Amino acid sequence: MRYAVLDGGKRLRPMLVLAAAEAVDGHEDASLRAACAVELIHAYSLVHDDMPCMDNDVLRRGKPTVHVKFGQAQALLAGDALQALAFEILVPEEGVPDATQARLCRLLAHAAGELGMAGGQAIDLAAVGRMLTEDELRRMHQLKTGALLHASVMMGASCGSPSKAAQGALSAYGEAMGLAFQVVDDILDVTADSATLGKTAGKDALQDKPTYVSLLGLERARAYARELLAQARTALERSGLPDTRALLALAEMVVNRDN
Amino acid sequence: MRYAVLDGGKRLRPMLVLAAAEAVDGHEDASLRAACAVELIHAYSLVHDDMPCMDNDVLRRGKPTVHVKFGQAQALLAGDALQALAFEILVPEEGVPDATQARLCRLLAHAAGELGMAGGQAIDLAAVGRMLTEDELRRMHQLKTGALLHASVMMGASCGSPSKAAQGALSAYGEAMGLAFQVVDDILDVTADSATLGKTAGKDALQDKPTYVSLLGLERARAYARELLAQARTALERSGLPDTRALLALAEMVVNRDN
Repeated sequence: MRYAVLDGGKRLRPMLVLAAAEAVDGHEDASLRAACAVELIHAYSLVHDDMPCMDNDVLRRGKPTVHVKFGQAQALLAGDALQALAFEILVPEEGVPDATQARLCRLLAHAAGELGMAGGQAIDLAAVGRMLTEDELRRMHQLKTGALLHASVMMGASCGSPSKAAQGALSAYGEAMGLAFQVVDDILDVTADSATLGKTAGKDALQDKPTYVSLLGLERARAYARELLAQARTALERSGLPDTRALLALAEMVVNRDN
Repeated sequence: MRYAVLDGGKRLRPMLVLAAAEAVDGHEDASLRAACAVELIHAYSLVHDDMPCMDNDVLRRGKPTVHVKFGQAQALLAGDALQALAFEILVPEEGVPDATQARLCRLLAHAAGELGMAGGQAIDLAAVGRMLTEDELRRMHQLKTGALLHASVMMGASCGSPSKAAQGALSAYGEAMGLAFQVVDDILDVTADSATLGKTAGKDALQDKPTYVSLLGLERARAYARELLAQARTALERSGLPDTRALLALAEMVVNRDN
């Protein structure tokens, strides 16, 4: 579990939680717990995705994957325990109001489950080797990676009490972020090398997976990423929140990153 | 997910939740949700345990295991999504007080995770092929199966407001139940056939796993199960709760079952 979580990784999801919590002046202990929880869910999903029966990958965050290092049974169990730990960390005996605990669990469970990340993975599995329409591809990614990125923003927001309007704006920001992240991921899979990525490059094309690049081509995929960044910026501007600089910086980082 | 959950199974854990909730006159919607949640966690653990990298079993609840029926990738994902669903079902938008939601999540996450079921599995993996002392074996089972059975009782109790004394008595009952269940499981693995069990009989011995039968022999294992039943009965008697008949009936069922 430590090996899977404690080094490497961009920590994008926790940063989204903390930036959103900062924007709404949210409860600090709650936001730190939420930040850890989303990263634990993300880490567990990587451990399981990398297993031989799924993507069968050997490199992650610049290291051998968990099942290569510890065996498949330990990888399976470590992932399972990381998911439980994500929820456990959200519900301390004291220090966070009960209503906040329940709200955070609700957002996380929904984003991780069959109508979120795990459901998106199942669609992804079923899609290998066939062409998806842009709508189908978007739907898959909205679940597979978008749901947890969106939930990260909304969990941060849930640590405070934003107005309905601000909640709506943050939700739109989170949607745009989720999509932008995946579009850029697809671009980097083609343009970057494994050493820079810390994971195996070029594997989507190799596995004949539908991606934004295979669907739109490289240039239109890049233009789409820029458009999503503009949408995220617009959402922040109409949020009415006094300081959304950290959220804007994260959006720019997601679109302009090189790994 | 439906295939893994919706038929077969003794439903012992949900019955423990409901019986404990009844004994403390607990919140009905909360107890139904808790009952579903523990069964979902149990079902996910069976799906993952049966996978080739773990116990590599082909028969469960009288049917082919999930990975045999749907493939390993779908089994992995279905298990992951069932765990998320267990937590999601505990935290509805309304109908259950926030404090109850948070308490139920806390008990379930702890029982499912690295200091509970998943941790017990990891110890079990490490123990194949070597002899454990009775203390080590008890510790492993307290985590692997005992934690979730104990949590089932305590989650049911958490749907009401039992006195400290009643909580302590229910906790002792849950501990005894957890151990008794495993002792009887080990006995049945030796004495029952696969058709009666609905799962592969004799596999512990085949896999050279330490069990109560391999450690104590059949007769002393049976005597130990009866002793644990007596402990459970005593705990209920000193709980001060007006009606613990359902809990007592479940304890008797656990010890006297033939599958």
